[in-house]
Amino acid sequence: VIVTDVAGILAEALGSGQVAAGDSLSHDYGHDEALNVTAQLPAAVVFPANTAEVARVVAVAVEHRIPLTARGSATGLSGACIPTAGGAVVSFERMNRILDIDTANHVAVVQPGVTLEQLDKATAAVSLVYPVFPGESSASLGGNVATNAGGMRAVKYGVTRHQVLGLEAVLGTGEVIRTGGRFVKATTGYDLTQLITGSEGTLALVTEATLRLYPRSAYSATILAPFADLDAVTAAVPPIIASGVGPLMVEYLDRTTMDAIVASGRLDLGVSQPVKDVSLAFLVLVLEQRRDVRLEEDVQELATLVAGLGALDVYVLPAQAGTRLIQAREKAFWTAKAAGADDIIDVVVPRASMPAYMREVAELAGRAESWVAGCGHAGDGNVHLSIFQPDPRTRGALVRDLLAAGLAQGGAISGEHGIGKAKKTYVAALEDPAKLALWRRIKTAFDPAHILNPGSIFDQEPSA
Amino acid sequence: VIVTDVAGILAEALGSGQVAAGDSLSHDYGHDEALNVTAQLPAAVVFPANTAEVARVVAVAVEHRIPLTARGSATGLSGACIPTAGGAVVSFERMNRILDIDTANHVAVVQPGVTLEQLDKATAAVSLVYPVFPGESSASLGGNVATNAGGMRAVKYGVTRHQVLGLEAVLGTGEVIRTGGRFVKATTGYDLTQLITGSEGTLALVTEATLRLYPRSAYSATILAPFADLDAVTAAVPPIIASGVGPLMVEYLDRTTMDAIVASGRLDLGVSQPVKDVSLAFLVLVLEQRRDVRLEEDVQELATLVAGLGALDVYVLPAQAGTRLIQAREKAFWTAKAAGADDIIDVVVPRASMPAYMREVAELAGRAESWVAGCGHAGDGNVHLSIFQPDPRTRGALVRDLLAAGLAQGGAISGEHGIGKAKKTYVAALEDPAKLALWRRIKTAFDPAHILNPGSIFDQEPSA
Repeated sequence: VIVTDVAGILAEALGSGQVAAGDSLSHDYGHDEALNVTAQLPAAVVFPANTAEVARVVAVAVEHRIPLTARGSATGLSGACIPTAGGAVVSFERMNRILDIDTANHVAVVQPGVTLEQLDKATAAVSLVYPVFPGESSASLGGNVATNAGGMRAVKYGVTRHQVLGLEAVLGTGEVIRTGGRFVKATTGYDLTQLITGSEGTLALVTEATLRLYPRSAYSATILAPFADLDAVTAAVPPIIASGVGPLMVEYLDRTTMDAIVASGRLDLGVSQPVKDVSLAFLVLVLEQRRDVRLEEDVQELATLVAGLGALDVYVLPAQAGTRLIQAREKAFWTAKAAGADDIIDVVVPRASMPAYMREVAELAGRAESWVAGCGHAGDGNVHLSIFQPDPRTRGALVRDLLAAGLAQGGAISGEHGIGKAKKTYVAALEDPAKLALWRRIKTAFDPAHILNPGSIFDQEPSA
Repeated sequence: VIVTDVAGILAEALGSGQVAAGDSLSHDYGHDEALNVTAQLPAAVVFPANTAEVARVVAVAVEHRIPLTARGSATGLSGACIPTAGGAVVSFERMNRILDIDTANHVAVVQPGVTLEQLDKATAAVSLVYPVFPGESSASLGGNVATNAGGMRAVKYGVTRHQVLGLEAVLGTGEVIRTGGRFVKATTGYDLTQLITGSEGTLALVTEATLRLYPRSAYSATILAPFADLDAVTAAVPPIIASGVGPLMVEYLDRTTMDAIVASGRLDLGVSQPVKDVSLAFLVLVLEQRRDVRLEEDVQELATLVAGLGALDVYVLPAQAGTRLIQAREKAFWTAKAAGADDIIDVVVPRASMPAYMREVAELAGRAESWVAGCGHAGDGNVHLSIFQPDPRTRGALVRDLLAAGLAQGGAISGEHGIGKAKKTYVAALEDPAKLALWRRIKTAFDPAHILNPGSIFDQEPSA
């Protein structure tokens, strides 16, 4: 297939005003934010305006065997929206309407191009909240559903899949299906909603999502606790969860990462110099409540608990300082990137296994003469590691060892970034072949022509 | 295949001590608690003691094309554990060990034959709770995972699928896979945990489940509020959820059902006779808290709210009366069965659509000259209807109309009971054929020989 064919075929299907190709194509369509995936421009980008047009695109793609890669805001970290050479990008930027904010059922119904920021504004207006904040508010909901996005609030509310109640999606056959609905419970056949969520655009193109909303809490507070080392901070997490206080965020940062975000965010957290000097790791807790008195009680309870768990000091941050710390923490990826990180991984392990895992990480990094720093969602056992090692071969071996060590601790390769094109070789090397074979059969069930985002998560071996 | 062959083949695989057939077979193996599915004894029952034995059973079943139906405690209401004629039941009664109560990660790891009662005792000992209480504590966890069991606490904690973090399962190919783990978030390929949960034994045989636990709340209270009619009680639900108080249970009962459970449970709820005389529906709210002062505040807040929403009176029940009311409510199915109900359905609709749906139910019941009564999980929009209509044809048409009306309200056919063999004809008639075809292709991906619980949820059409 040559470039002009793909654009021509799609233009014939949707009209030339909805297709871009050749010189008019922005380089943006060739990449996302993954650090280690080669950019690749598609043969064409198509901009459907509604579900019927998406279905038409899929139908002609099946007919002409054109690979299709869905694209939201392209803020992902796994390369899952980088297209196949000669294929087309399906951009959802025109399908960006909030279709309903249903205050009686506490759901939002959105098109895939709606951004988190857009949804947050609309829900705030009615004192509700969509609780997934993966740290980049320009991200689209379609992308969040495809990636099963997480973020700092997952320890209280869960991740994207826990909020996705229903979908409209176009299968790889061109058929449009609707799954789930404006309810939390159902047991009526296989749960296609959950299967499509997190499938990174390889099973279906999501054209509408029904998302769970919650009452927005009125009061929040931030606690910062420096610790002597990473071991001590990660060991403090299980008792904090066991307390039942139910914090909104339970984050850890190592000294390097804290220094970097303090510098880039120009933060003054009020930590005294003597404490700073002996603190190699930090715990950040955010609490929220619907009553101010309860918030104060919870802050007291957790501050006392944390002090007893080895914190060198405990700071309850003033509201503005707390907000700025969280905002700076959200930008940790950009800070790491600016510092020259060569790769980023986000292993998840059982939260009580974090101390043991972090010791292994330090050992593996040392052995590979590489520098590894990070922060993460401690309440969820989700460890974000920035890897500084310019040599691709040494780095690849180290990443593989770090992921294998996470799996050996009973963990998973990615907690929230996804696999995409960035980590599929690690998945192929480390995951059970029986599971990979099953994934391939499931993909074929949804997408018999293998046109939906081929080469993401895994390579489809010929089924014959 | 004749009966002796199946037993002989399985005895050869596992040893004759682990197979029962012929006259030694209890009639229990031919039914569950579904009201409208014909009992069917299997050719044999096999009792594996571990995962390797389950895998061996599946391997010989594939070789000899023996249908296999998994069975836990057989307390299900959909006939999903009623075997195929000439097939075998795989009973998990020997695989009944709690493998771990992990207090640091808040998970339990259980074999499928563990009962809810057994798990509740073990978790209570460490002040944790597995929060799914579908009303029958002799139910097995394997059955709960297969059915995606719900119950009264779902409005706060969600249903079984929200607690299943990982599985070990034997595919229809005989391969053993492990999915998920002791963590809440991951995005590493397709979520097989969620797909197998709720698949009613048609995709894989679950041999181990990793389940989420929560801190057990110390304090609870029950509020009972009589209303003039069903419309008023269901209309009160959205504001209660919107309040943010977060009740543990939000249940409604119609007058008929309340009278029946009060009589069968010999309850004295302290409702005055003048109020009783004008109350056609009841709301029951249960709250829980980790601090007694907060519980009192929450009770006050909700009692005031409910009074403003049209309750004829509001009773805060003494602890023992509250417990007895909930226990009697849990037995509502048995009460309905004892009263001669001919069928039971559990449609789910968006909770704000309950008033409209209940009006349709009344109209449809009247038109069919049938009597329909019920109760349900109002917070979840999950409506349990007992249908009294002895004529199977009239009843079948009425059930179909009731389910279709639920779907038209944006709902689903079953909120928690599942489809099994009891409702598959309704699913075939009412669900989107494109979705049914996709389900069949997914089943084939897991179970290419179609030996796992064939004829549950849907009939597998020949793939040729």
